[in-house]
Amino acid sequence: MTPALRLNRLRGVASRAGVDAIAIIPGSTFLYVTGAQFHLMERPTVLIVPVEGRPAIVLPDLEFQSWQALGIDAEICRWKDEEGFADAFAAAARAVSARRLGVEGFAMRYAEFSALETAFPAATFANVQQHTNAMRAIKEADELGRLREAVHYAEAAFNQTLAQVRVGMTELEVQRRMMQAFLEQPVVGPIGAPLVLAGLNSALPHGHSGDYAIQQGDALLFDFGVTHHGYSSDITRTVFVGGVADEDRALYDVVLAANALGRDTARPGLTAHALDDAVRGHLEASPYADFVVHKTGHGLGLDVHEAPQIMRGNHTPLAPGHYFTIEPGLYRPGRVGVRIEDDVLITDKGCESFSTLPRELLVVG
Amino acid sequence: MTPALRLNRLRGVASRAGVDAIAIIPGSTFLYVTGAQFHLMERPTVLIVPVEGRPAIVLPDLEFQSWQALGIDAEICRWKDEEGFADAFAAAARAVSARRLGVEGFAMRYAEFSALETAFPAATFANVQQHTNAMRAIKEADELGRLREAVHYAEAAFNQTLAQVRVGMTELEVQRRMMQAFLEQPVVGPIGAPLVLAGLNSALPHGHSGDYAIQQGDALLFDFGVTHHGYSSDITRTVFVGGVADEDRALYDVVLAANALGRDTARPGLTAHALDDAVRGHLEASPYADFVVHKTGHGLGLDVHEAPQIMRGNHTPLAPGHYFTIEPGLYRPGRVGVRIEDDVLITDKGCESFSTLPRELLVVG
Repeated sequence: MTPALRLNRLRGVASRAGVDAIAIIPGSTFLYVTGAQFHLMERPTVLIVPVEGRPAIVLPDLEFQSWQALGIDAEICRWKDEEGFADAFAAAARAVSARRLGVEGFAMRYAEFSALETAFPAATFANVQQHTNAMRAIKEADELGRLREAVHYAEAAFNQTLAQVRVGMTELEVQRRMMQAFLEQPVVGPIGAPLVLAGLNSALPHGHSGDYAIQQGDALLFDFGVTHHGYSSDITRTVFVGGVADEDRALYDVVLAANALGRDTARPGLTAHALDDAVRGHLEASPYADFVVHKTGHGLGLDVHEAPQIMRGNHTPLAPGHYFTIEPGLYRPGRVGVRIEDDVLITDKGCESFSTLPRELLVVG
Repeated sequence: MTPALRLNRLRGVASRAGVDAIAIIPGSTFLYVTGAQFHLMERPTVLIVPVEGRPAIVLPDLEFQSWQALGIDAEICRWKDEEGFADAFAAAARAVSARRLGVEGFAMRYAEFSALETAFPAATFANVQQHTNAMRAIKEADELGRLREAVHYAEAAFNQTLAQVRVGMTELEVQRRMMQAFLEQPVVGPIGAPLVLAGLNSALPHGHSGDYAIQQGDALLFDFGVTHHGYSSDITRTVFVGGVADEDRALYDVVLAANALGRDTARPGLTAHALDDAVRGHLEASPYADFVVHKTGHGLGLDVHEAPQIMRGNHTPLAPGHYFTIEPGLYRPGRVGVRIEDDVLITDKGCESFSTLPRELLVVG
């Protein structure tokens, strides 16, 4: 889809959200709309897209060439470091008259928001994150192609890494080998550090890899993915090293069944709430109900966490083109954590998992 | 420095900024204060630190263990995905009474800001970014150790990459080799994609590496660094491949002289304005005045761009412990860009460049 068509889509979002214009700063929606990755640092860059008429962009002077290369028709309000950005915001406010301005709650920063408040003194502001989320939630064919590649490369790197795991390696050593494996894939983008957690650390749902050395019988949790042309994969597999205790296997099997239930249940028309309820319900009905700490999943695309959130309370019906994770987990403090995470697409009839790595309990090393 | 001491430092910042408390979300200041890297996604996490009394933290339930591991005494206001976060913000507002709340303009998001506005209906808000910037601008010994390592590893990777450059390679191929070289360093952190720009692309100050294949006589600009335990290096060198035209050499020499002037001039007591004025003045007095598009540099630490900004209008006097880039550049559209960027520390007497790669014009390949 071209930037011009995406701009029109954002105009539609503004209209549906009941605002006169939407202001976005560099990040995932900015990339979605313009095709461009601008830096988000100490220099405010704000694109203001009205329901009708020309957009305006507040632009740091040194981004002028990059902006022009996009070929997007907009009133350009440039500013230089030594002059500050207030005049550029004022110029943008003259170019786009808006009494109701929409901003994205999880992207817009206080600095740009304050500058907008000053430049549009009569305007009211609304959080349109839900609406921009909805715009991006249904993936198009070209996006699905990128997402499929991102899964494929991540899985290849996982297989390559798993073959190297041995008792005594530290989490950081395994992490480094996986990053090495990522680099051998034709991924276009930065290489994130995967989460590699061993033994009792696996019970920390958002822990950090460290110097802990893998011991015989440890769980080893990999939460990993790559970002390819802006689109991310996000997969988790939990293996055991050198053996597995019966009590850990019992817990694993509950998570495995919850993951399968999620993939079997997801289909158009079912709400995100109902899907989470089914998957989490399975975990909560097990002897491990106390070890449930998070929802079933989240949308995935230009952001690693985006719409639709697969959680109770989200009554959005799933629809073909929705793409999200199914990632049930159980976390037994001080002992073991297990999570099995797939990246799935809602199809016309049900759900297709783009991730295809085996899910059954695997003992390696 | 321990989190307890850093928390006290933030209390002092609040006091100097004239607010009753400062609210921060995960990111560089949060890491500086707590030592912890929490995820910044769709789940608001806000630490509210008052001038006096116990802090409060609005905390997604699944981060509870990670937060507890920090051993920071605070009123914990937990929230679960299915309940939403409004009650947790209200609980935090009961725990920390504040009529004036400080937030960081370049970090705080509209979603958390709105939730704070609702929870503290009588409060006024102030952007305290300048004050938190100043807190973090003077580097301590342990921080300088990390920064020195980050420079050392980046330079080693640069040397390894440069030896492999040949005419015909694409920017992306060179970029990948550099990332490979980063991974061979003992860096603890993610591996960013360095900026590698060849030929006329080098004239785009914030361009992106692509499929352009290096030609004989091209400039090849590397803007690179690593992030090690949270601390970043940020270095630029511009080399020529297979030869260099006289007119490109003449432009290069102006940038080289400006870089040397910057390193010779920087010292305690000189303002950031005066340093930028000297370096940029040198470029502007050359035949290439039209090709100047950015300031001299920026502070560097837990953020790749932080205080002090080395630019006209910033009348902050440089002081021992300030750490920033000196990166004059000239960008001749459609032809060539040259930037030479060092990472320097203000010492008691002058300035020490942590980056030590040769700066003289180099022809490779």
